[in-house]
Amino acid sequence: MRHTISVLVENKFGVLTRVAGLFSGRGFNIDTLNVAPTQDPTMSRMTIVTRGNDATVDQIVKQLEKLVETVKVQDFREGEFVDRELAMIKVGVDSKTRAEVMQITDIFRAKIIDVQPKTLTIEITGDESKVEKFIELMKAFGILELTRTGKVALPRK
Amino acid sequence: MRHTISVLVENKFGVLTRVAGLFSGRGFNIDTLNVAPTQDPTMSRMTIVTRGNDATVDQIVKQLEKLVETVKVQDFREGEFVDRELAMIKVGVDSKTRAEVMQITDIFRAKIIDVQPKTLTIEITGDESKVEKFIELMKAFGILELTRTGKVALPRK
Repeated sequence: MRHTISVLVENKFGVLTRVAGLFSGRGFNIDTLNVAPTQDPTMSRMTIVTRGNDATVDQIVKQLEKLVETVKVQDFREGEFVDRELAMIKVGVDSKTRAEVMQITDIFRAKIIDVQPKTLTIEITGDESKVEKFIELMKAFGILELTRTGKVALPRK
Repeated sequence: MRHTISVLVENKFGVLTRVAGLFSGRGFNIDTLNVAPTQDPTMSRMTIVTRGNDATVDQIVKQLEKLVETVKVQDFREGEFVDRELAMIKVGVDSKTRAEVMQITDIFRAKIIDVQPKTLTIEITGDESKVEKFIELMKAFGILELTRTGKVALPRK
């Protein structure tokens, strides 16, 4: 099962290494992870997407809670939450395919953020399935480079 | 000096722990980091924002290049690149302040993605300075929760 875990941590040296180590030490793969400061620069929030059976994820959550730097852990597998991710995709185009790529970009309310003679760089924001659908469509034109932030999530309530 | 480093890695077990360890082992703080699969599911791209003198960052780049999982390292401190980040912000509102928050959201071309009686959750995408300016403005209304993806970057050429 897929889990989205949000961890609020004190922004202290080496905390990312310790958190990543908790997952790799248990043989858990991290699908995506991101970490950045919050509105309080002494705090950072990490969002981790992982796969695994619920019992093992429960253990990881407990271990995360035990880290001295941890302020709060939320496991979003059950609760109501909103999630988004951002991707930037550089697609190869020529005079024939440019218009088609622009049309699809428009339909997805994505945005062209850089134009070069033979490439377009596109920014897309949405939930994971929207971003993945768009990437799938762009593969037909030739994706030269792709970078994704991974999911961020917040509870609705 | 601030550096944005992009690392293309084989999507293998424990690679995040090793990369994070390279930074913490040298006493380098990571400002933001994100990692997610690329269009090729066997590859992931990491984007790391760090501060430090150029000589030490050069050493880290060399060590990153030596990791067996590393395919390519790009240090964006000099080259031309486009970068974006995504933030989700839950702001406290009442009947008086809701309209004002909505106006500022509109000016920044940000998007309200969830509405509750006493909160609005807003998604904003842009370069770091735009996202930071928006967060600064929202502080006046009361930020209840905030999550940022950290920067992703692609070279223009």
